[in-house]
Amino acid sequence: MRLGVHDLPDLSLGAVFLATGGGGDPYVARLVAEKALQEFGPAEIIDPDDLADDAYVVTLGGVGAPTVSLELLPSVTDAGRTLAAFEAHVGRKVDAVVSFEIGGGNSLLPIVAAVERGIPVVNGDGMGRALPEAQMMTYPICGVRPTPAVARDYEGNIATFATSSIFTYERQIRSYAQASGGMITACEHPMTGRELKASIVPRTISFSIEIGRILREYRGNAHSIIEPLGEAFARSIYGQFRHLYTGKVVDVQSRIIGGYDIGAATIEAFDRNLPPLRVDIKNEYLVARMDDRVLASVPDLITILDYETSTPINAERLRYGQRVSVFGVGCPEHYRSPQALAVVAPRCFGFDFDYVPLEDLALPS
Amino acid sequence: MRLGVHDLPDLSLGAVFLATGGGGDPYVARLVAEKALQEFGPAEIIDPDDLADDAYVVTLGGVGAPTVSLELLPSVTDAGRTLAAFEAHVGRKVDAVVSFEIGGGNSLLPIVAAVERGIPVVNGDGMGRALPEAQMMTYPICGVRPTPAVARDYEGNIATFATSSIFTYERQIRSYAQASGGMITACEHPMTGRELKASIVPRTISFSIEIGRILREYRGNAHSIIEPLGEAFARSIYGQFRHLYTGKVVDVQSRIIGGYDIGAATIEAFDRNLPPLRVDIKNEYLVARMDDRVLASVPDLITILDYETSTPINAERLRYGQRVSVFGVGCPEHYRSPQALAVVAPRCFGFDFDYVPLEDLALPS
Repeated sequence: MRLGVHDLPDLSLGAVFLATGGGGDPYVARLVAEKALQEFGPAEIIDPDDLADDAYVVTLGGVGAPTVSLELLPSVTDAGRTLAAFEAHVGRKVDAVVSFEIGGGNSLLPIVAAVERGIPVVNGDGMGRALPEAQMMTYPICGVRPTPAVARDYEGNIATFATSSIFTYERQIRSYAQASGGMITACEHPMTGRELKASIVPRTISFSIEIGRILREYRGNAHSIIEPLGEAFARSIYGQFRHLYTGKVVDVQSRIIGGYDIGAATIEAFDRNLPPLRVDIKNEYLVARMDDRVLASVPDLITILDYETSTPINAERLRYGQRVSVFGVGCPEHYRSPQALAVVAPRCFGFDFDYVPLEDLALPS
Repeated sequence: MRLGVHDLPDLSLGAVFLATGGGGDPYVARLVAEKALQEFGPAEIIDPDDLADDAYVVTLGGVGAPTVSLELLPSVTDAGRTLAAFEAHVGRKVDAVVSFEIGGGNSLLPIVAAVERGIPVVNGDGMGRALPEAQMMTYPICGVRPTPAVARDYEGNIATFATSSIFTYERQIRSYAQASGGMITACEHPMTGRELKASIVPRTISFSIEIGRILREYRGNAHSIIEPLGEAFARSIYGQFRHLYTGKVVDVQSRIIGGYDIGAATIEAFDRNLPPLRVDIKNEYLVARMDDRVLASVPDLITILDYETSTPINAERLRYGQRVSVFGVGCPEHYRSPQALAVVAPRCFGFDFDYVPLEDLALPS
C-alpha cells in the first residue's frame, strides 16, 4: 500500500479518534508529513506479514508533553536525523520503521523518517490507541528490549540509552525530554521482523484512514455515523463499539501533575433523563462513569466526538458548553493478557477497581 | 608521585577542607579508593606539565546529590566501568584521568578508575574547591566541550550525551542522575594534554594532602593551626588565607530546593564582642556576612572547622551548638577572569552584589 499526501487528512482524523483524548494534536506532525511526502513521494506501508523474519525494525516517535510540540515546532528533518543517529549508534542499517502509537501525531513521524530514507513503514503500532508511558506499548509487553535507544532534541543534541528495564528506560527518556525543552524524538525498541509480528497491533494505519474517512463522510450526522463506525470496529481487531452518552460538557477540571494532564470532565444529558457522565483524564480519557457505575475503562478506548461536526476532541481542548457524544471501543486482544493488564489496567493509573471488558459492562438504560 | 593507601586519610581530610562545606562526605569514596589501591597498588599522580600535549584526557566523577552516595553505595568497579564504557563509546583509549573537583569524594573517584586501568591521574582538578554545577568547572570556562560524555548508574545502565552547550549538558546529566536514583558516575570533557594544561587548577591533589597533614598534626589546637595553614595557602595558587570568625552555631536552616541544599547558618562569638556571622549555603558555604557586611564570598572559599578537633564540617553536618572557626581562602586566579565570574560570581547563585576579592574586604575589627 502506498500512502500519499491525500491520505493524510483521513489518517490524522482517524488517529485523533484512536488517541482517546490524548496523543497530542497531530496538526503540526501532519504539516511535517505533508512536506515530507511532497518532497520524497508516497510512503510504502507494508503489512507486518510481508516483513522478513530477520528484518531489523525500530520504533520512532516523539516523547514528552504533546502541548509542547505546538510551540516548539518539530522540523521536517528531525525524524530522519534521529533515525540516522540511531543507525550510526548501532552501526547498521534499519530495514523498516514502525509507530509507538497510532493515536495522535506519533502515527505520522515514522512516515516522515521512512520516506526520507526510502524504507517502508510497517502497517500497525505498539498501542492501537494512545497511552502515556513506554512500558504500556505492546513491544515491551511482549518482551522486546527498549534499548539501544537514541534521543534527539530540537537543537540536534543526541543522547543514547542502554538498559534492559523498560521502567528504567521510561524514567530516563522522560527526564531527558523534560530537560530538553519538553519534547524529543526517540528511536528505540529495535527488533527483528519476527519479534515485531509477535508484538505489533496490526494494520492500524489503514484502519485509522478508514475511521477518518467515515468521520469525514458522516460529518454533522451525529446519529447516522454510529452505524458505519460500529460496522468498521466490528470488522476490526477492536471488535466492540458502543455509544455511551450524549450531552453537554458542564465541568472540566485539569491540572498538570508530574508532566501529565490529570483531571475529569462532567457531561450532562440534553434532557437530563440520565445521571451525568464523569470522564476521568490522565492525558487520555481513562474511565467513563455514571453514578460510580463504570461504563468503560482503560485499556478499552473512550472517545469524545463533537456532536455537531463528529470531530474527535482531545482532552486539552475539552471545554464547558461543548455538545458531545461519548463512545467506548474494545481494546485489541493484546491488552487483555495478564502481562498487559499488569501495566495498563485501571489500577496502574491509580483507580481502585479491576478491568472489566467493555462488552461485559451494562449500558445505561 | 605515587599515591598509596597511607595517603588517603590526609588527602580526603584536605579535600573536605577545600570542599567549603559541599562536595559530599568522602567517607564512602575513601573506602572504595582504599580497596582499589590495595588491589591494584599505588596510583601514579602526574604533574600536568609532564603530560604530552597530544595525550587524551577525560574527567571522571560522581554527579548528583552527595547525600545519596551514603545510602546508594558506589561499588569499587563503578569508576573503572564508566571509563571502559567511555572508551567503547569514543572508540579510543584514554591516556589519563582527572577530577571534576578536588573538594569531597570526587577527588578520589579518578584514582579508583586509573589504578584499575593502569593509567595516571593528573595532579589537579577543574575547581580547586567544590561547586554545584558543571559549567562552573575551569574546563568548560576555558572552552573545553563537555561531550562526548558517558553516564553509568549503579545498576550498570549506560547513557551517552552529545551537545556543545555546557548549560544543556548540565541540565541533561543532572536530570539523568535524578532519574537514576539520585547519583551516577560520569566521564566527560575529553580533551588533549594541551587543553588540560590551559584549564586545570594544578597540583591540588598534592596540596590537599598537605592541608590534610596540617589538620591532622595540629588537631585540637584551634589557635596554633592558623599559622601553618596560612603559610601553606600563601605558598599555593590560592594565596590568601584569613581567619574570619570563631564562635558557636546558634541557628542552621536548610531546605532541599531543586536538588540543592539551600540555607544559612548563624554563628555567635563566644564572648559576643562581635555581631553574629551569617553564612549562606547552597550545597557549599557561599557568603560570610556580619551585619550585611560581606567578609568573604564565592568564588573565594569559606570553610568551617570544628573548634575542638580542627575537622572541617560539611554543611549537611552543621548543627546547633557546635563551636567552630570560620576561614576564608582566596580562589585560584582561574576564577577571577570575566569568563569565570560570568558563571561563578555571587549573582550566579542569586545574591544581589558583585564579587570583591577576599583580600580587598575589611576584616572584622
